[in-house]
Amino acid sequence: MDNKRFPFAELINNLSKLPGIGKKSAERIAYDLINRDQSFSKALADSIVNTRANAKICHRCFNLTDKDPCYICEDPARDSSVICVVEEAKDVMALENADDYRGLYHVLNGLVDPKKENPNIKLNELLKRVENEQVKEIILAINPSAEGEMTSTYIALMLKPYDVKVTKIAYGLPFGGDMDYFDKDTINMALNNRREI
Amino acid sequence: MDNKRFPFAELINNLSKLPGIGKKSAERIAYDLINRDQSFSKALADSIVNTRANAKICHRCFNLTDKDPCYICEDPARDSSVICVVEEAKDVMALENADDYRGLYHVLNGLVDPKKENPNIKLNELLKRVENEQVKEIILAINPSAEGEMTSTYIALMLKPYDVKVTKIAYGLPFGGDMDYFDKDTINMALNNRREI
Repeated sequence: MDNKRFPFAELINNLSKLPGIGKKSAERIAYDLINRDQSFSKALADSIVNTRANAKICHRCFNLTDKDPCYICEDPARDSSVICVVEEAKDVMALENADDYRGLYHVLNGLVDPKKENPNIKLNELLKRVENEQVKEIILAINPSAEGEMTSTYIALMLKPYDVKVTKIAYGLPFGGDMDYFDKDTINMALNNRREI
Repeated sequence: MDNKRFPFAELINNLSKLPGIGKKSAERIAYDLINRDQSFSKALADSIVNTRANAKICHRCFNLTDKDPCYICEDPARDSSVICVVEEAKDVMALENADDYRGLYHVLNGLVDPKKENPNIKLNELLKRVENEQVKEIILAINPSAEGEMTSTYIALMLKPYDVKVTKIAYGLPFGGDMDYFDKDTINMALNNRREI
């Protein structure tokens, strides 16, 4: 894009880097921002900077949060005997949006991949929670893929020696799907059809 | 959305107000921002605030710009004897992206609507440009709609007494379409098929 001809090129360029925003959408958004009250662009910019600056990782479940422990781990109404294991923090939001689940979470921060080691994957931390917390059930809610299956199997084997039920959510979606885009009903159905492995 | 459960609710809420961004897209963008380097959210926020704060309207063509006169009006390589009349500033960008047009613009800032007066519509300003600038052709490039047709007819009648050719771009798109989303080839075709009215 030619900077001389497009005075809003920097904004459009930055917006285009966001997921799902192409050049045309970025242009639409830029013009929309210019046509709104200046207070809105200020509020949007502030919420971007503040959210990023205040983002923390919960030391217990590794969910992204603005306070540690996160609001889910701290909620006395949640069932702390059930932990749902997910790949990424955004999967927590997908499950929370689905609204049925009342247990806690554990964000793995990646998948088991025999081809390359992932030093950040929170497997030991999951083991420690099973050892130290009163956990009755681990629900594996990992996106369907080869690495996802491998990760589920790995965790099931790792937890074999412990007195904890390990279940896996049912997959009703095409292989390679991304949990983050599932609708509420599908997520709830998958949760309700979980089976012991 | 429940603020307690979603710590990034303010950002997601602000993002959802942008055109084409629903709740799920806003969540994706929020997580993407949190996972990027902090410098990116700072740069994005700065470009939002600066673009909005520095946005000006060109006093000659009423295009949105960051300097007045705008870069198009000031460009000596453009053909100042041709003025393309559009409804909104974002239509200028659509035409500029199409790349063929080398004349100037005039942003009407609305359409002629007999049901309600639009005090901001720049019709008198167009007339003054025809009177004071060496204009040979006025190209009407207004989105196809009842008000768009009415506006084109109104301008053609208004300019009848003047020695200026008034043309209208060809419409190849469904009635009710929005120029802002046309592809480059369609826009160029429409420009090339313009006819005198």
